[in-house]
Amino acid sequence: MRVRVAVDATGGDQAPAAVIEGALAALAADDELEVLLVGPETALRMAPAERRLEPVRSGPGVPEGGHPARWLREHDDAAVTETVRQVARGLAQAAVSVGHTGALMVAARWVLGPLPGVARPIPVGVLPVGSAPVLLDLGASTEARPRDLLAHALLGSAYAEVVKGVANPRVALISNGVEPGKGTPLLQEAYRLMAERLPTFVGYVEPVDMFAGRADVVVADGFVGNVVLKTMEGIAASLLPLVPEGSPLHDRVARMTDITAAGYPILLLGVGGVVVPGHGRAEAADVARAIAGAAAAVRGGLLDRLYARLGDLGAEDDGPTEGSKRG
Amino acid sequence: MRVRVAVDATGGDQAPAAVIEGALAALAADDELEVLLVGPETALRMAPAERRLEPVRSGPGVPEGGHPARWLREHDDAAVTETVRQVARGLAQAAVSVGHTGALMVAARWVLGPLPGVARPIPVGVLPVGSAPVLLDLGASTEARPRDLLAHALLGSAYAEVVKGVANPRVALISNGVEPGKGTPLLQEAYRLMAERLPTFVGYVEPVDMFAGRADVVVADGFVGNVVLKTMEGIAASLLPLVPEGSPLHDRVARMTDITAAGYPILLLGVGGVVVPGHGRAEAADVARAIAGAAAAVRGGLLDRLYARLGDLGAEDDGPTEGSKRG
Repeated sequence: MRVRVAVDATGGDQAPAAVIEGALAALAADDELEVLLVGPETALRMAPAERRLEPVRSGPGVPEGGHPARWLREHDDAAVTETVRQVARGLAQAAVSVGHTGALMVAARWVLGPLPGVARPIPVGVLPVGSAPVLLDLGASTEARPRDLLAHALLGSAYAEVVKGVANPRVALISNGVEPGKGTPLLQEAYRLMAERLPTFVGYVEPVDMFAGRADVVVADGFVGNVVLKTMEGIAASLLPLVPEGSPLHDRVARMTDITAAGYPILLLGVGGVVVPGHGRAEAADVARAIAGAAAAVRGGLLDRLYARLGDLGAEDDGPTEGSKRG
Repeated sequence: MRVRVAVDATGGDQAPAAVIEGALAALAADDELEVLLVGPETALRMAPAERRLEPVRSGPGVPEGGHPARWLREHDDAAVTETVRQVARGLAQAAVSVGHTGALMVAARWVLGPLPGVARPIPVGVLPVGSAPVLLDLGASTEARPRDLLAHALLGSAYAEVVKGVANPRVALISNGVEPGKGTPLLQEAYRLMAERLPTFVGYVEPVDMFAGRADVVVADGFVGNVVLKTMEGIAASLLPLVPEGSPLHDRVARMTDITAAGYPILLLGVGGVVVPGHGRAEAADVARAIAGAAAAVRGGLLDRLYARLGDLGAEDDGPTEGSKRG
């Protein structure tokens, strides 16, 4: 299936070189892929002529520091916004930006709009440990409400189905014990909601059992999800110097320092399009994997699956569009 | 220095056998130690005659399940309560119970009272990874307020000084980024309080940097602390089968499955006495380590150090004594 992916040429510390190199690598690996490279003239000029790499002129990339939401409002033609617009206009089926995740979240919500029942887009990924559960979110919703966690459970279920190929994914809530009375008031209410609305809800899971296959999708608010992710990375970093290089164990531990190491992309879920963020330190290979992940999500019908999952939640009025809490 | 430690003979899955065996091992390793073994006649009867092991008759141990606070109110002579009472009466300088931690927290707060400015006792320990930071709390205060986190920072500082021998321990708050604007509203307010009141406060630390020596004491609410601890244990459990047994790395990973493996005890801080909880699955060696840890904390002058640290916080009125949120 032919897929067109819009890629922000200005995203990441090594832009545009790493982005261009990554796009070319993704094109070389996939004959049915086309890339729209979006950025200012200075960035586009560095790309070689290639039939399936189409330059799209835009304004500048997001500068370091400052408040991305405000800056994006003042720069309507920003590269990240124009990248997402390619999807809104039907010129591409997915958008990739390995730059400022907060800015991408703001641009994606403004341009593509929220999915029904979802307050703001959240990053979702697969933990590269043990049974490799889908974790969400990875660090956006530090002030989630119970119904947000229910919506996230549905987003994560769609991810597990389409990206990991799991039928009827089991969903658990991360808590400090498995009895229903455990957890914060937020979790207790989310538990009640999920038990009522989600047939594949299996209850609480403690992080100690998270990698042992108890659930396919584990849900936490963004703060707790971030703590899980960063604890994993910190432990891996502390162990890595002790493991003989080249050993299978070294690979195993090294994987834990990179959330995409299990081979599944991070997706920014909750907006009306396929959007893939990345790490600011992304190298060409990371960009290529992000583009391939975006194409695979499109081919798997992610967006249809998301709408189907969220269908019975109903839209909610969130008042005026807000900037991301993360940026 | 001669130390007397009261030990709950009914605590843990393997009580009283593992408790008695552990007490005897602790006595064998420390000539200046005396143990008061507290429990019902049926338990005490199993202990051999030993000059420094003194039986103290009490009521029964806490039964499985149910609400420990209510049960303790209805059983004033419960073994765990009588164990803590030995400290309140000056007959022992520390209390150890490897049974139900929630019950021990309730009994300790009722019998010994709270320290000034501390809402409820919290378990504190040392993460056996990298720079081995003191983590608090390990799972009690799931509804902490900013001033609770400040009080916890002071408790953790006293622990680091007395138990780990760190002068002027640096304190950090666990967050999802290091910029002062990061974190939940709770953390932002705690950040402001600590920056104002704690000269050795070094700001936020992400869990990824927690084991790299950025801080000696890391503070989180009990839910987040529990997530850190259990994520560490889960990752260790997933790696352990892959590591050759007997290798130095196997030891290193195995340590991560046990919070006391760095050689420092868990202490229940925030009450007017030295109190050591333990894991319900504790074996004799764990009981012996808990008793030795209690004796070391007494000899190090922990309680004086706690009062000195908390001195300027002032007492707070928490209303009627509450049961533990954990049990």
